[in-house]
Amino acid sequence: MQFSVSSRLTYQVNAPATFLILLRCLETANQKVLRESLTITPQADRVDLTVAPARNRFTRFEISEPGPLTVAYDAIAQTGNQFLEIGCIPGHGVATFGEHEFPYLFPSRYAPADLFREAAGDLFGSIENPFDVAMAVEEWLYRHITYEIGASTEQCWALDTFLSRAGVCRDFAHLGIAFCRALNIPARYVTVYACQLQPQDFHAVFEVFIGGKWYLIDGTRLAPLNGLVRIATGRDAGDVSMANIFGNVVGTGVEVATNTLDDQNAPFVPVTRQSLLESGKALSIV
Amino acid sequence: MQFSVSSRLTYQVNAPATFLILLRCLETANQKVLRESLTITPQADRVDLTVAPARNRFTRFEISEPGPLTVAYDAIAQTGNQFLEIGCIPGHGVATFGEHEFPYLFPSRYAPADLFREAAGDLFGSIENPFDVAMAVEEWLYRHITYEIGASTEQCWALDTFLSRAGVCRDFAHLGIAFCRALNIPARYVTVYACQLQPQDFHAVFEVFIGGKWYLIDGTRLAPLNGLVRIATGRDAGDVSMANIFGNVVGTGVEVATNTLDDQNAPFVPVTRQSLLESGKALSIV
Amino acid sequence: MQFSVSSRLTYQVNAPATFLILLRCLETANQKVLRESLTITPQADRVDLTVAPARNRFTRFEISEPGPLTVAYDAIAQTGNQFLEIGCIPGHGVATFGEHEFPYLFPSRYAPADLFREAAGDLFGSIENPFDVAMAVEEWLYRHITYEIGASTEQCWALDTFLSRAGVCRDFAHLGIAFCRALNIPARYVTVYACQLQPQDFHAVFEVFIGGKWYLIDGTRLAPLNGLVRIATGRDAGDVSMANIFGNVVGTGVEVATNTLDDQNAPFVPVTRQSLLESGKALSIV
Amino acid sequence: MQFSVSSRLTYQVNAPATFLILLRCLETANQKVLRESLTITPQADRVDLTVAPARNRFTRFEISEPGPLTVAYDAIAQTGNQFLEIGCIPGHGVATFGEHEFPYLFPSRYAPADLFREAAGDLFGSIENPFDVAMAVEEWLYRHITYEIGASTEQCWALDTFLSRAGVCRDFAHLGIAFCRALNIPARYVTVYACQLQPQDFHAVFEVFIGGKWYLIDGTRLAPLNGLVRIATGRDAGDVSMANIFGNVVGTGVEVATNTLDDQNAPFVPVTRQSLLESGKALSIV
Repeated sequence: MQFSVSSRLTYQVNAPATFLILLRCLETANQKVLRESLTITPQADRVDLTVAPARNRFTRFEISEPGPLTVAYDAIAQTGNQFLEIGCIPGHGVATFGEHEFPYLFPSRYAPADLFREAAGDLFGSIENPFDVAMAVEEWLYRHITYEIGASTEQCWALDTFLSRAGVCRDFAHLGIAFCRALNIPARYVTVYACQLQPQDFHAVFEVFIGGKWYLIDGTRLAPLNGLVRIATGRDAGDVSMANIFGNVVGTGVEVATNTLDDQNAPFVPVTRQSLLESGKALSIV
Repeated sequence: MQFSVSSRLTYQVNAPATFLILLRCLETANQKVLRESLTITPQADRVDLTVAPARNRFTRFEISEPGPLTVAYDAIAQTGNQFLEIGCIPGHGVATFGEHEFPYLFPSRYAPADLFREAAGDLFGSIENPFDVAMAVEEWLYRHITYEIGASTEQCWALDTFLSRAGVCRDFAHLGIAFCRALNIPARYVTVYACQLQPQDFHAVFEVFIGGKWYLIDGTRLAPLNGLVRIATGRDAGDVSMANIFGNVVGTGVEVATNTLDDQNAPFVPVTRQSLLESGKALSIV
Repeated sequence: MQFSVSSRLTYQVNAPATFLILLRCLETANQKVLRESLTITPQADRVDLTVAPARNRFTRFEISEPGPLTVAYDAIAQTGNQFLEIGCIPGHGVATFGEHEFPYLFPSRYAPADLFREAAGDLFGSIENPFDVAMAVEEWLYRHITYEIGASTEQCWALDTFLSRAGVCRDFAHLGIAFCRALNIPARYVTVYACQLQPQDFHAVFEVFIGGKWYLIDGTRLAPLNGLVRIATGRDAGDVSMANIFGNVVGTGVEVATNTLDDQNAPFVPVTRQSLLESGKALSIV
Repeated sequence: MQFSVSSRLTYQVNAPATFLILLRCLETANQKVLRESLTITPQADRVDLTVAPARNRFTRFEISEPGPLTVAYDAIAQTGNQFLEIGCIPGHGVATFGEHEFPYLFPSRYAPADLFREAAGDLFGSIENPFDVAMAVEEWLYRHITYEIGASTEQCWALDTFLSRAGVCRDFAHLGIAFCRALNIPARYVTVYACQLQPQDFHAVFEVFIGGKWYLIDGTRLAPLNGLVRIATGRDAGDVSMANIFGNVVGTGVEVATNTLDDQNAPFVPVTRQSLLESGKALSIV
């Protein structure tokens, strides 16, 4: 499936500043970037910090003159989704994790798994199969956390969400990650462009590592699971902020658009958590 | 300078368990491991997860039979220290950070820099030169935090230390890292074997990235700065625990020994923060 | 029912100090102190701060000479318990609370009800009758919190217990109070001597105000509900510490003993939560 | 000095609700209410919970019909200020506190003194005289905390302010109270009408008990100290909220006005912290 994605970040720059932005689509085994452009107006010297496949594609640039600034990103990305029979996901255990998975068991700023061992154990500890645990976490998030814009700030961590029972996509992901890590399931934070998300914005989901693969989870259930285009992967939101800005700069706007480039012979059929479960499938998008 | 290091971790294993240990000395540009052995008794299948230079050398292994367990590590390491004239450390700025440094600006579990922006700015914001900031942070830690075994737990983060004004090496490092990151100085957590540390134990210090190099800081001032043998580098203690254990296992003992292998012609001369400052030097051990 | 209670607090006084202790049994409509003595060795000038019925009976005294100190309290107290038919507890509402109840809705140091509104609503919000809510809170505490000496410190508040799922009597009470207040049920902290508590120590329970009366709740279920002798009532543990000490003093021991003075014709029959529920009764000890 | 004060709280009531409001001026030894009216539109049954002098004058009422609601309070109050020579404030100590002062040493929801012992000791512990400590706290608040509307929420406590270094009057008072209690100086929260506060709103200050009297402190320095009319006294903001509302009600507006009723022969002369210090005086308004 192909998607066109675009994002526009606008700023008022008041003094020379350095930007570290993270808007470009990742290239992975299942995701190709067919075409893309990143335009900074006025022009800036820029450095793409990472271009290796599957590593976050940060762009760093400097603005020396005060004035308005626009960062525009447009791309066509092609994504593949792997649907796996849930019944065939092998049992797993920490013994199967390698150096790339272990760090996603460690506690992070917004997903402090060490603080959630007992609460997660109390809520989900009686479930044996790790994939069932992950599905129970997803269900719990959906049933117990209210999606509410403005209910949280950028400093909120999973404890706040566990108490306030409200938040945005980032908060759902952090609490889910904290629960899963606390139960020894590697979990990581993923920022995406999300087709059919209303209203359009950046979106955040999370992935859990079970039986050798990363599976996608979105406790908000706000967007089709097969309509996501991956931007970046991290321990939590602190790793993959869309924009880290160093200097006196004021944000003035964010616009995001994600659309299917429908093939008339193969229209986009939204996959939801419900349709996945009914078909006995799990989804991996890495 | 050459050092002999050894560590002994002993456990009572009550049920099959997986261990992820991090005791082996790193190999870096300035540190060579001349000889080493890691012995697990009873014997276990083990996998060294990372052997590439400068990457943490985790060892994962399984124990399937209940009983006592000993993990013994012995090594001879040779370290080089770079002494740099403080006056020659170039000015820097976020524009000079690359993909390997930026993550050390991001907040982490125990060093939540985002929460310390204002307090760090209030305490150190008037100091212009980043190296002077780092030295002021070191001084503040030494003057305001009491080294006190038992004053903190493994769940304590920099906020606790900022309030309780007491902690162990790990707490000094976390608060220092939080301050530095909050002031846009990349900072990372380093576990070490520490010569002349009394009583002998694992030790933790931190490094700050200024003018293209990582400089060593130890707010506890408990060990000579040129007597450290690096074990691992991470965002904070959550990344580089000596032992992550998955299973019903009880720790029964930790023994650490670090000694100089003195060359009679070049005896070990301890370098302290005071002697460094008097000579106008800064120390980098990477 | 009559009880003999005694407590011995011993200290090493290193410098002149002021003590504020709270060991004496309260006098209330349902509790009489038949005989009591409070002995401070060596002798100290002391001031009993409050003697009015139903107000906490603090004793303040000064010790000017260094040395060992013993505070010994012995009393015979007679308590009455009111057993009420649960079915007859009238519906209630905030409109029925007066100036003496409202403060027990407000958040306090260790029972920050304002932070628990959503979590308490999520867990108990679907239960209509306030007495049923209180019983569900008791049941939840008993089922989800592990009684574990050493699991908490004196700085722990209800959030810690909600996460760690472990604590002592004080922690059970604080979390229960936070839940109840969050659901608009006035709740207060009560320190008691507790007959048949094993091992003997001071104990803490809480009370909820429903339909015009205060009902007793003990989520630990560690002692018979009709074997409690009330010491003090407060917002939370911060109000009713057994000993606030100002000066360089080290605690060296605490001994508590609570025994029934059985009337041979009316032996002590322990009342448990289970026996209460089976008889359709609720207990008020004020 | 006489003041006219008025406040207007407006609401949209969506369902039957109970209100507990706290707008009426206190009557104390130094403050008389010469005339007052509290008007609720539409009319409500109301109960003034406390009328005894020096106790907070809560008003409870019920609204059963949905619709707009206005609570209007108007009063003429006469206040006396006691100016004391700082040099004559006697030394004090915990031995001089009685049952009415001790509770203001205990930790409360938003002023958790127990968590600030070490930080307060580090910042102010070297100052011997308690009045000098209180003045140093006031100065610290003024120098280190930025007054910024919107920087805090109603759930913020002194720890947040200590980190964020920003807040409103309530936050200044909570942090100051936490510092003082941590240093064994009883401290309490006071809500007031404040003449010449710009823009007009309710205001919060705090009082410290030293040498037998309560002295006024306002770390915001936003209003003349002799232009305050006391509404209520509490442990912290949790005790003296202007309005506790139980039910589905939305606030639609708050208006406050405080004016001097100048005697032409004795015009209002603002007293500031600076003018007080220059004259060697301290102010008590109880």
